[in-house]
Amino acid sequence: MIKLAIVGSGNLAYHLYEAVLPLKEIALVGVLGRNPETLRDFDQVLTTTDPLALPAADLTIVAVSDDAIGKVTDALQKKHGLLAHTSGAQKLDAIQAERRGVCYPLQTFSKLRAVDFTNIPFCLEAHSEDDFELLQHFASQLSSRVEAMDSEQRKYLHLAAVYVNNFVNQLYQTAYEILEDREIPFDLLQPLILETAQKVIDQKPADVQTGPAKRGDEGIMQAHLSIQSAANQKIYQLLTTAIKNSQNT
Amino acid sequence: MIKLAIVGSGNLAYHLYEAVLPLKEIALVGVLGRNPETLRDFDQVLTTTDPLALPAADLTIVAVSDDAIGKVTDALQKKHGLLAHTSGAQKLDAIQAERRGVCYPLQTFSKLRAVDFTNIPFCLEAHSEDDFELLQHFASQLSSRVEAMDSEQRKYLHLAAVYVNNFVNQLYQTAYEILEDREIPFDLLQPLILETAQKVIDQKPADVQTGPAKRGDEGIMQAHLSIQSAANQKIYQLLTTAIKNSQNT
Repeated sequence: MIKLAIVGSGNLAYHLYEAVLPLKEIALVGVLGRNPETLRDFDQVLTTTDPLALPAADLTIVAVSDDAIGKVTDALQKKHGLLAHTSGAQKLDAIQAERRGVCYPLQTFSKLRAVDFTNIPFCLEAHSEDDFELLQHFASQLSSRVEAMDSEQRKYLHLAAVYVNNFVNQLYQTAYEILEDREIPFDLLQPLILETAQKVIDQKPADVQTGPAKRGDEGIMQAHLSIQSAANQKIYQLLTTAIKNSQNT
Repeated sequence: MIKLAIVGSGNLAYHLYEAVLPLKEIALVGVLGRNPETLRDFDQVLTTTDPLALPAADLTIVAVSDDAIGKVTDALQKKHGLLAHTSGAQKLDAIQAERRGVCYPLQTFSKLRAVDFTNIPFCLEAHSEDDFELLQHFASQLSSRVEAMDSEQRKYLHLAAVYVNNFVNQLYQTAYEILEDREIPFDLLQPLILETAQKVIDQKPADVQTGPAKRGDEGIMQAHLSIQSAANQKIYQLLTTAIKNSQNT
């Protein structure tokens, strides 16, 4: 049985809270947050805005913004056990305490979307072996995919995550804007969006590439360029070049 | 009952062939292709490499590469009924015959992946109203999503499709290469890739954007830039700017 505390009251903190409540191996002792408003959603457990009022724990998951990790963990005491942040981009040493760790769930979290942690990879790091085992025990209650990942590797994984999440979503938005201007419904693209994502589950992306850039169809590419804004032309040309280069390697 | 002929023996031709075979409202009379090798896969129906040997049809679906549409439809006679190409990028008038049309299925097709046409939007255009109705009757046997779309609109739809398919897939490949260099398994990103795609089913992409560019977290963005190739730095900067601009509109 792990006594768990959660620090933070944002999307990730909330989804973790919901996921651990039913687990027998984990006893959630309290949630610490700055904002009394958002703490109200955590109504099955003790909540507080005062670090001194947070009950003792074996493991404290710190799910706050990157900038706040140092400050909030400095305010916590030894009685809160292993302090583990959840950031993909911050080093293990963003926490000063001796018992420090990282518990990075590789997923994007929105307040209103349900989360199934079972398939979400948890990337773990700790300062001591005992603490790594504690993190492993915790994460494997939630997910079937638990990986050791040091701060250096995690930096690259987080960069890759920005490409397949934030940047991909921006390309969806670019398509949205192209269609909106012509009053064509965006949802026509849904099956294509889903198939594109599902295709790379078993295959290397470069091996399933299609389209004018891959075929070197200059006529279509010129026609596409002629109907775009200057900003989108740049993106179009850069990604077209990237496709050609990836096909040649 | 529609007498149907298919011209072409590539991925789309093959998947259409498989989809229409069981349909009672459609009688497939033959498949015309250049390559006797690939025609062998169409073993439930008459196949030929000779336009003169293709049986008469009400509708002939021309699923060949963009460059070949003009040439192959010039070789077909009136007995092949309405000639409809399947390209997103070519105008209706890429076909010279009087009875011409477009039947564009908005999806990416690979030989080895099964296709469920039910949810794939078919974007239709024809020179005459009667022929449009014939296309509509045909397409609605396969799919529940059938739309009228003229050549001008289709050009924008095809451009948007390149963004959410070819360009998105290239970002997956970029992530693949970033991880490969560090020996981190690409499949760690699968749940994130799928969630990112599923998120925009109900919501506008700009509204569900997350990450350092949206938050304006310059520290993380600088750290990301410092670990990338020059070519990827350009893509990173351009998409970061695009995210900032989309958030401000």
